[in-house]
Amino acid sequence: MGGDFGPRITVPACLEALALHPELHIYLIGQSSLIDPLLANSNVSLKRLTVIDCQDFVSMDDKPSYALRHRQNSSMAKALQMVNEGAVSACVSAGNTGALMALSRKTLGMLPGVDRPAIISAVPTSEGCCYLLDLGANVDCSAEHLLQFALMGSGMVKAVEGIERPRVALLNIGTETYKGNEQVRLAAERLKVQPQLNYIGFIEADSVFDHCADVIVCDGFTGNIALKSSEGLARFIAAKLRINFSQNIYRRMLGWLARPVLKELQQQIDPGRRNGAAFLGLQGIVIKSHGGANQDHFVCAISQAVQDIHTDVPGRIRDTIASQLGQLSRE
Amino acid sequence: MGGDFGPRITVPACLEALALHPELHIYLIGQSSLIDPLLANSNVSLKRLTVIDCQDFVSMDDKPSYALRHRQNSSMAKALQMVNEGAVSACVSAGNTGALMALSRKTLGMLPGVDRPAIISAVPTSEGCCYLLDLGANVDCSAEHLLQFALMGSGMVKAVEGIERPRVALLNIGTETYKGNEQVRLAAERLKVQPQLNYIGFIEADSVFDHCADVIVCDGFTGNIALKSSEGLARFIAAKLRINFSQNIYRRMLGWLARPVLKELQQQIDPGRRNGAAFLGLQGIVIKSHGGANQDHFVCAISQAVQDIHTDVPGRIRDTIASQLGQLSRE
Repeated sequence: MGGDFGPRITVPACLEALALHPELHIYLIGQSSLIDPLLANSNVSLKRLTVIDCQDFVSMDDKPSYALRHRQNSSMAKALQMVNEGAVSACVSAGNTGALMALSRKTLGMLPGVDRPAIISAVPTSEGCCYLLDLGANVDCSAEHLLQFALMGSGMVKAVEGIERPRVALLNIGTETYKGNEQVRLAAERLKVQPQLNYIGFIEADSVFDHCADVIVCDGFTGNIALKSSEGLARFIAAKLRINFSQNIYRRMLGWLARPVLKELQQQIDPGRRNGAAFLGLQGIVIKSHGGANQDHFVCAISQAVQDIHTDVPGRIRDTIASQLGQLSRE
Repeated sequence: MGGDFGPRITVPACLEALALHPELHIYLIGQSSLIDPLLANSNVSLKRLTVIDCQDFVSMDDKPSYALRHRQNSSMAKALQMVNEGAVSACVSAGNTGALMALSRKTLGMLPGVDRPAIISAVPTSEGCCYLLDLGANVDCSAEHLLQFALMGSGMVKAVEGIERPRVALLNIGTETYKGNEQVRLAAERLKVQPQLNYIGFIEADSVFDHCADVIVCDGFTGNIALKSSEGLARFIAAKLRINFSQNIYRRMLGWLARPVLKELQQQIDPGRRNGAAFLGLQGIVIKSHGGANQDHFVCAISQAVQDIHTDVPGRIRDTIASQLGQLSRE
């Protein structure tokens, strides 16, 4: 029910995802009066799609505290309860991020040794991608929280990218050890003595896209600013390119000829192509789609959930954290 | 002496700036053995250029505290002393940012009512530019500091852009009043009751380029991350465009035809075009050029100094702060 477009985007995306992943079964939870008409002309076998009618839903304006108190019967809460009961393997939502985070935490609970969930997403780089966390779940973070994010991010990247020792960096405003705020400097001290981590030091925000790290750790305020700044600039550049290529007939023709090249660029920088941010640290898989996602983007979010199920991301994170806790108890 | 390239960039840039600004007189402070050969073949009248030999200089690795103790006879310190004595109207440097900030603060002193200097720079937007501060001088900021930054930024934009009531926004991870960390929320309470400010609320980082504010205020950690993330993405996109337009002969030809259009884009997003970040809150004008600036970029930094001298940026900031302090004392 969530996101800027609701079922008219999410339902067709589910049908596409079912065609893409033969082993997938999707439960659509929401107002069936809105969902059913969108399924009427579908040619995907409906044996793998179950609609669960649920009238209440979390609105985009609900504060997390309000959702916790008053939205326990919403489609979002119901989906998370199904993850908790083991009826489904993951929950995907384009809805209210704060409410999804609060309800996820309450319904699923945290993995042992993790204080707070973090939001992680892939960012394109010159040679593939890297993973950035936290992207907004925690505005203030201690060094201990940043350490937990590093362990979780490393565990996830091991699982989904198959990298044995992912390079972990801390996002900072300089690479010298004395740069940055106290939390970042303290976190650096903690990270560099963890044998579970391949910590490579501080990284500046302009190097995020240079593929010099696999996991980049920061507090949620910083991560959100980094991600959104680059999204804003990408939009700005796309708009400038459109204007520059339409100033006269010659340029318009040139733009038409160059369309495949420019389209390629658009795909390379489109954040939607990597849509589907995972909530790490929970006892279950929850994937948050961008609210403004189109159909293709929402399919990406579902595919991310499928991948996280296959590679058992929560299990890998549990192992990474447990190995660090084990080491602590031995010390 | 500073920056990645030293005199071989800064000296030719000075000659270009002298040709551009007929009223300008430049004092070049540094090792004359490096400077003089670069002036040998110049056709600019050397009546408007004075070389002051100074052997010591601040290295890019000097910590601010080290520079304060051991670099009082450096070219950087000497230039700031000349600003303080009124021998020159502004100091421009491509050197070590932390050292320049520490030496500026000690040599020039702060304007009354300002606790800390802030770094401000223009950022391109869809309809011109906006100004972002702080860009890295202060990693931790209280609400009071953010308020002072807002007043200083507003004073500067009034002066250099001629906007009577610049729109001031706080950079945050959401536009709702309950979003963000404590400092940002407290700052919002302070800003909205200032009659000197045209405060318009929170702004998200992806809207920075949309021209919805003239002054965007944040702590130095956040500002640095926002600016460098977008610089990194701009570089990433430029590299992708180069690759996409060189994959085969047809595309190479297309790229050659589209060169003027792409060059236009490069100029539109080139942060160097707006090179020259001002240190606000000091009793004098100090302009910091990007360390990696090329000759054109360094000319921009000198032009920024010329503009700040003509519009008396420190005076305008003093007035804005004094009017707020006056209001406080009346309350």
